[in-house]
Parts: sequence; structure tokens; C-alpha cells
Amino acid sequence: MSATPTTDRPTVQLRKGAQRRALAGHPWIYSNEIEMAPAVKALPPGSVVRIKAEDGRALGTAIFNPHSLIAGRLLDPDPELALDALFFARRLEHALALRERLYDKPFYRLVHAEADGLPGVVLDRFDGHLVLQTNSAGMERLLDPLVEAIDTVLKPQSLLLRNDSPTRKLEGLETYVRPIAGALEGPLALEENGVRLLADPREGQKTGWFFDQRENRARVASLAKGLRVLDVYSYCGGFALTAAAAGAEEVTAVDRSEAALALAEQAAALNGLGSRCRFRRADAFTELETLAAAHQDFDIVVADPPAFVKSKKDLGQGSRAYRKLARLSAACVRPGGFLFIASCSHNMEAAAFAEEVRRGIHDLARTARILASTGAAPDHPVHPALPETAYLKGLLLQID
Amino acid sequence: MSATPTTDRPTVQLRKGAQRRALAGHPWIYSNEIEMAPAVKALPPGSVVRIKAEDGRALGTAIFNPHSLIAGRLLDPDPELALDALFFARRLEHALALRERLYDKPFYRLVHAEADGLPGVVLDRFDGHLVLQTNSAGMERLLDPLVEAIDTVLKPQSLLLRNDSPTRKLEGLETYVRPIAGALEGPLALEENGVRLLADPREGQKTGWFFDQRENRARVASLAKGLRVLDVYSYCGGFALTAAAAGAEEVTAVDRSEAALALAEQAAALNGLGSRCRFRRADAFTELETLAAAHQDFDIVVADPPAFVKSKKDLGQGSRAYRKLARLSAACVRPGGFLFIASCSHNMEAAAFAEEVRRGIHDLARTARILASTGAAPDHPVHPALPETAYLKGLLLQID
Repeated sequence: MSATPTTDRPTVQLRKGAQRRALAGHPWIYSNEIEMAPAVKALPPGSVVRIKAEDGRALGTAIFNPHSLIAGRLLDPDPELALDALFFARRLEHALALRERLYDKPFYRLVHAEADGLPGVVLDRFDGHLVLQTNSAGMERLLDPLVEAIDTVLKPQSLLLRNDSPTRKLEGLETYVRPIAGALEGPLALEENGVRLLADPREGQKTGWFFDQRENRARVASLAKGLRVLDVYSYCGGFALTAAAAGAEEVTAVDRSEAALALAEQAAALNGLGSRCRFRRADAFTELETLAAAHQDFDIVVADPPAFVKSKKDLGQGSRAYRKLARLSAACVRPGGFLFIASCSHNMEAAAFAEEVRRGIHDLARTARILASTGAAPDHPVHPALPETAYLKGLLLQID
Repeated sequence: MSATPTTDRPTVQLRKGAQRRALAGHPWIYSNEIEMAPAVKALPPGSVVRIKAEDGRALGTAIFNPHSLIAGRLLDPDPELALDALFFARRLEHALALRERLYDKPFYRLVHAEADGLPGVVLDRFDGHLVLQTNSAGMERLLDPLVEAIDTVLKPQSLLLRNDSPTRKLEGLETYVRPIAGALEGPLALEENGVRLLADPREGQKTGWFFDQRENRARVASLAKGLRVLDVYSYCGGFALTAAAAGAEEVTAVDRSEAALALAEQAAALNGLGSRCRFRRADAFTELETLAAAHQDFDIVVADPPAFVKSKKDLGQGSRAYRKLARLSAACVRPGGFLFIASCSHNMEAAAFAEEVRRGIHDLARTARILASTGAAPDHPVHPALPETAYLKGLLLQID
């Protein structure tokens, strides 16, 4: 891990006045803030560059993509910082120290992009098995030192590259899945809130597991003793099994994926919860409509759907979908029961989401109170200058 | 508890178009939305009224104050609802059922105003001892049936009216403290997160205890094992003792109030934590400056001040105070340590508060990540149509 000379590092200069945000600690430089000289425009996506203000003042080291709206991603105020395996090892060690303080067991998001100083990098840990995403052109190009550092710091049994996130398109990157080291066979076991769960990082959604809902699962479960719980969009049963383990009388998990439900059912058996859990393959909206029409009500309903607002142009349609989901979910909650509903849409602001949920419940002529407005678990930290990256919004309500 | 006839109930009519928000479930009617006929303007503050739309459609029963910006507070869509002891008993029973689901021990905010269907009413419970506030003219006038219902539902050992909140001025109400039933002598014991604590509802701030920080105290404590913690604005030691009980190596509690520190010290002894807790009477800003100048750093700093933005006109000055507090607090956090900082200012929005905290940390040329953006505990619910009443904002950060 020797330092790489930076003498051949290209310099990218900002336009007049554009250094203000960078100097204030903002890690993103937008393409319209950059002097796009032909040589700069021709830099390969993902180049490591030196950022300078118009007056020549150095602002730091960044990864650069001339074809992306977020053209520069600052990594450090040192403009000559070597982005070698040693650099990555240091950032990984910091991220690891935080997670080891947060959690007893080695199952968590170990690196959450900008907030952990590694823009575009997602690294999820299932004990010795790691799942990596490099969602920026810069980190894609720096994959070798990054992987070297992962090997050094974590000595993983296996490392899987799940580079099939649609966000890669914004950076002009292809999507692919590739094992880097070790062989992953079958689903992985994990433990969360004292519950054993199963995930499949090769075939499952995103990196296989949604660690971001860990605390929300615990929060819902803390209410669940002796109650009947419905979990739609249950995926591998995170909310459902956590509630069952906390003493829910009966839990119904609904998902469209047979593979996900099979993992949930296996995990229920692992925890000795099989007799209190039911699994139903169905579309969430259809199932909720059927249950509501049949006056089937539950003490707790959990609705944790995939993003309904995938891009800004979906905002109208996606907002209506959240309102409808809130209405149908609340219709299945008995008076005095609870609804936990979430949005993981980056483009849906917390206040707007809460308003759609309010409208959906009001559509039923029912009233409610918000018990908690939550976000992602702390292994998904937020960069203080990027509050808009706090994508996960959860609302726990009591419905009258 | 017999029903009261409502035939002599006055009618308050809304202006053209002003019924829309009420029909959408918003519980507040602003004075400029009301046809202020002389007879309406002459109604005694706190009168129970029937609200009608311009077209004569009944919108519900409200309490009314012609001298307040929030002139009408809707209680129910039924315009003839009797606001007698039975009405209050039903609302109290609902509120109680929720808290009994949330908590094992009888220490909590039992009624949190609009979100519990009782506008302006705050009722905090210390087992058999209750502390009440009636912060709207309507609830002040309805004190008799409210107290009757409290007696019926809760059979309290003592009931103290702590009607000395400055918000009463907005309703034209005097401030006073008065025991209603039973005698409260000396501080009260309470239990929260498994920790025994002491509060004095007669002399302490607000109702004596800040139940709203319960979950935030647990969250901070979950990080505290083996660490050194500084708690400024410690009041009676809620954060400090919860951290100490969770295994913090050493906890320093700082407050200006000798009485509050004395209760914190007694509570530390009750929990057998005295040897790991230190108590220092000082102004928080002065103490933080002294500690930072002496390069005294801590693994965790908690800064939970009183509201710096008491009214909208204080926003500029208060915002600067939050920034300064963030800077001084973060200066006392060792690299890699944690800061929990809160604002209970109604007039400080969550995003604006987070931005002041970000600036304060950036003023030190340090970076950070937000691990959690939190609010008040779920016994302080939020009415879905009044998101602006979510007054408590907490940020847990790791500081590099």
C-alpha cells in the first residue's frame, strides 16, 4: 500500500463564485459550476482530479464525471491525496469502528456512501460475507484499491459486487453482478434485534437485505405482544418475524416474491415461530383491498413498499400511490390499532409523504395520531450537507 | 356524568371557502376565517360553540376564543357533542390505552393536546401523581368536567395544576400553580428506561420532567458503555444517569440549577451510580468554552437546551445560538465521538436546526455524519394535520 504520485492528476477549475459551497463543506460539485474546458470535458468518467477555485485556491481531491449532473464528488480537502488502498483502508476502519459501537453482531451496512467519505460506495456486511456496490464512476475506476483495502481490513469469506442498481445509469455505468472473491452459495443467515433472518444477496432486492429498517422493525415489534400483525411488502419477513419474536399472536406476511416468502418461512422455522406466522403470495394493493372488503382487520399493519417515486417525473403518480396505500392499509387496522408505513423514495420529501398518508387516512373518514417519524438506522448515516439523501421516511400512527 | 343539553350553544359561522381545511381534518380555525359578528366577538373566551360553514353545513363542536389567532379548536365533527365528564373520560381512556401499550411503567405524558383530542391539555403522569396544564381558554373553562373525568379514570393520589406556561398568554390566560387534589410533598420518583429518576413537579421546569426525551436518552445510552459523557443542560440528569446506568465510565452533568443538580445527584445514588457521576453547577456556554479551551474532550456530549427561539422574532438570534452551541459542544467531542444536540423551539424547523448544527461543526473545520434525526417520544404524538407542532428536534452525530 504505497502512496501513488499525484503529479499527473488533472485539475478541474470551478466557475466564479462556485467555490462557496465546497468551502462550506458540501461534497458535491454540479456540472454547471465547473469550467468545462475541452480537456476537462474529455476526462474519462471517474477520473481522480484536483479541484481548484477560480482564483487558483486548491479545494481538494475529487472524483470527476463530466457526463453526470453531480460532476465532482469531493473526497478530501487535500488536493494531492493519494486514493490508494491505504486511503480506502483508513475510511473502512472508521466506518467499521462506528458500526462496532452501534451493533453487537456483524450484520449491517458498513459503508453508506458520502456520509462515510466514500461517494457512491455501498458495502453491506453479513458477517464474513460482503456485498459491494460502486455507484459512481470514480469508485468504479478505483475498484482495485477499494477491494484491496476490503481484503486487508475485513478478510472476507466472500465479496460479491451487486452493481445492478438503476442509479448507475446517472453515472453512465453498465449494470452487472460479479463475485469478486469466494463463492456465495444459497441464502445467508443474519441476526437483527435478536431475530435470525435469511437473505439472498445474489438474487434478492438491492444487496439482499434492508438493514435500514432495523430500528423500525424493533419499534413496531415493541407494540406487538399478543396482537395480530399484517406485513405487506414483507420481502424476507423482517417486520413480520421481528413482531412474531416479540410475541405477536399471529403474523401474516404478504409479498409477490415466492423466493422471498420461502426465505421468510424458513427463517420463521429457525426462530421457532412457524406456528404463529402465515405467508401469502399476493400483490399488496390487491390483498389489502380483499382484506378490507372482507372486514378483516388487524391490530398492526406494516406497509413498506419499494419506491413509488423513482424519478422526479413520477412524483404525481407516486404520491397518489402512497395516498392509496395509506388508505388501504389503514382500512385494515382496527380502531385503536397501529399503522407503520414507509417510503424509500429519494424524490419524496418527508413532509409530502406525511401529507399523502394523512390524506389517505382522512379518505376513510378516520382520524389518527403520529407516534413517530423515523428514518433509516444509524448504519445509514446522512452527510450533514446532503439532507436530501435521507431517503427513508417511516411513520408510525395510531388509527382511531 | 349526564349529558348536557346543547340547545343554548352558540353558533360560529365560517367565511366563504374557510370550511375546506376543517373538512379536510384540520382541527384549527384561524380568527380571519370566522365571520366575526358582534355577538361572536363578544363570546367569552373558551366558549363551546357549534361551527358552521357559510352554507349552514355543520362542521362540528369547537372551543372558541375570539381573542386568539387560533380562534376555534375543533373537538369533534358532531356539532351537538356534550363536553361533559363522560366526553373527557372517553378521551382519557383512549389516551391511557395507548400509553399502556407503549410503556410498562406508569410514568409518561398521558395527554398531549390536539393529538389526543384535547386541545391545549397536557397531563403528565408520575404513577399516582398527575400534573395538568390547560393551555387553551376552552379547556380552562371546562376544567371541572375534565378534573371529574381524571378522578374517575385515574383515581390519582394527587393532581397539580401547573398553569404557568408562557403559551397561556396567547389565549389571554393568567398563569398560576394550584394543587387540585391531594398534597405533593418533596420530589417524585419515576422510572424510565429502567433507570430511577427524581423530579419536582411543583418547582421544576414545565411539569417537572421532560418525558419527551425518553427514547433519545436510551439511544444515547446505547452508545455509552465504557465512554466518558458530558451532559450540558442536564436538568435532573435524564441523559446523564441513563448513560451511566448503561455503563458509561464517567458522566459529567452540568446545569445552572442547584435544585435540579441535587435531584440528579440523589437519583444517581438511588441507582448506585454515584461514583461514576459528577455534577457541576455552571452556565452551559461558559462551561463548554472552558472545557474546550482546556482541551478536555469527551466521547459523547449531550446538549439539550431550553428553547432558544421562543417566538418568531427570536429566529435570527436563536439560530445563531444553536450554531454556537453546536460549535462549542462539538469542540468537546474527541475525534470519532458523538454529539446529541436538541432543539425544543416550536419556531425552529427541523431542516433549519440541522443546518445551524452543520454550520457550527463546520466552524471548527470538522466533519460529521448524522446517525439519527429524532423527535419526541411516542407519548407526545403529533396530529397529522399539525406537523408544525412537532416541536422537538434531536440530532445524533458522529464527529470526525
